[in-house]
Amino acid sequence: MTTSPWGFGLDRELLMVDEKLRDMVKSEEELLTEAAIHVIAAGGKRLRPTVTILSYKALGGTDIEKIIDIAVGFELIHSATLVHDDINDGGSTRRGRTTVYKKFGLHNAVVTGDFLFVKAFALGGTYDKNVVKTTADACQKLAEGEILQSSYRHTAGITLDKYLQVMRRKTAEPIKAGAMVGAYLAGGKPEEIQSMGDYGLNLGIAFQIVDDILDFTGDETKTGKTVGTDIKEGYLTLPSLLAIKDSEDSAGVIRGAVTNQELTSEDVRRCVEVVLKSGAIEKAKGMGEYYGNEALQHLGSLSNTPYSQSLRELVRKVLDRDS
Amino acid sequence: MTTSPWGFGLDRELLMVDEKLRDMVKSEEELLTEAAIHVIAAGGKRLRPTVTILSYKALGGTDIEKIIDIAVGFELIHSATLVHDDINDGGSTRRGRTTVYKKFGLHNAVVTGDFLFVKAFALGGTYDKNVVKTTADACQKLAEGEILQSSYRHTAGITLDKYLQVMRRKTAEPIKAGAMVGAYLAGGKPEEIQSMGDYGLNLGIAFQIVDDILDFTGDETKTGKTVGTDIKEGYLTLPSLLAIKDSEDSAGVIRGAVTNQELTSEDVRRCVEVVLKSGAIEKAKGMGEYYGNEALQHLGSLSNTPYSQSLRELVRKVLDRDS
Repeated sequence: MTTSPWGFGLDRELLMVDEKLRDMVKSEEELLTEAAIHVIAAGGKRLRPTVTILSYKALGGTDIEKIIDIAVGFELIHSATLVHDDINDGGSTRRGRTTVYKKFGLHNAVVTGDFLFVKAFALGGTYDKNVVKTTADACQKLAEGEILQSSYRHTAGITLDKYLQVMRRKTAEPIKAGAMVGAYLAGGKPEEIQSMGDYGLNLGIAFQIVDDILDFTGDETKTGKTVGTDIKEGYLTLPSLLAIKDSEDSAGVIRGAVTNQELTSEDVRRCVEVVLKSGAIEKAKGMGEYYGNEALQHLGSLSNTPYSQSLRELVRKVLDRDS
Repeated sequence: MTTSPWGFGLDRELLMVDEKLRDMVKSEEELLTEAAIHVIAAGGKRLRPTVTILSYKALGGTDIEKIIDIAVGFELIHSATLVHDDINDGGSTRRGRTTVYKKFGLHNAVVTGDFLFVKAFALGGTYDKNVVKTTADACQKLAEGEILQSSYRHTAGITLDKYLQVMRRKTAEPIKAGAMVGAYLAGGKPEEIQSMGDYGLNLGIAFQIVDDILDFTGDETKTGKTVGTDIKEGYLTLPSLLAIKDSEDSAGVIRGAVTNQELTSEDVRRCVEVVLKSGAIEKAKGMGEYYGNEALQHLGSLSNTPYSQSLRELVRKVLDRDS
């Protein structure tokens, strides 16, 4: 991928991000490079670098060299967690491609994720203490979100509040950190950095909500993901949590499915149908809009530039995406 | 563990290391803290912090606060790799304790290792670019060593040269990095930093050779490890490689064992016996002495202080250890 999936005229910057990503994973051990490239080249949306770079530019940052490395660092952290997540979920495809876990085996997947973390560290560690602390804190929350999510796997015990805690930590905190670091490196004032962080946090939650909706409604040829994967893997997400509230019948089917570790495709299909019929998707979309709107509120004090405009448009694109 | 297993009057410093280690792994998610403490509290030899601190002091460093954080960082990296290694090896005990993998499961072990890496980054990233680069480069080599070792698992294809490459990268490079960082932070000259690095590298190889010997000769109540674990897990190490050269009969038994993924305890016992009878242990000890001596050579230009004396004694203790 060499052009921004979001538009915004960031083609040159995201090309630099991609070049740097590929450069960072060069290793004497070809297998390590190959496995790392396998996940990086799968593309993805480069949401984290996009937010980091736009935040930097929106706050007046002009030295692109100064922001690329940490933008790449956030993408490397994200890639590392994808590789390690796939081990947990036993997932065989991601973004329509075989996972590193399936293609290279358990041990190589563990080490490839570690390698991607190390390369993120090599980049992030060249910045000052504030950047290091913001980034490391986000990574810690990410790990905590993973542990929390895992503790509810194959149970029907997660509440809406706990679900939001997981999403916030796993997905939104690293995006928040990228937005804050962008603003900080541009020389933003403390309140500006905080506002960009709040923008990133809410954008991240909205992004994850849409992800969880697409797991029920998505076109598999566009998402590269089989519908119902979350249920199959034992996770209740926003749509299924809302459907459980809809009726006792729906709740029974969904609880039965998520706690069953031997679901057939037919079981999954039936559970997805129950969620789709319950009206939960519309409610979940409403919550996505809520967080999207919250994100926009935090852009209020930004001067009107092409970059602040792009940050606004990004919210809409995140909410309207179909892949 | 609150006293140095090596002596050297580093009790106070290693107590600080232990306190900082425990402090670093505090998390809102109790399970994460518990799993991290599980590996940290198992003790181990704290070789990496010991080398880092001694190197700093031997080069005249006096501000202990300045060196503790990175010494802890190296131990966190080591702990992270232990947790992830145990996943690969499916090992159920380490240092006589249940592994994180067996006690907390696959996913929690993956995330706990990541968490320990992140906390190392949080510490290492507060140092200057030279320290970050030295540390990150060592971590990359560590990952490369893991991949290289894994590529020979359950095969009889590894050569002595490749074995040494694996040991150098997996074990010796991080110890070398700790020694170099200690010397650098003490204000050592480039050639002094290089010498300390060469010391650490050779000490690390000697340490790993003794580890591999103890896998054949160790008293299980002292090592906490079952004799023959390397063979059982499919790895040829120095003693078995040397025994293969001893006779065609030995070679046949050992090659047969290491390529067999369904070894019984009796198969392992027989293979260990073949190695013990071959004279390979004595040759391996000779190689350990060689690297130990190389390590000592690189201390030649150090002024004679209690700390340079401790670095010398450490070589002997590493070579003579029985656990």
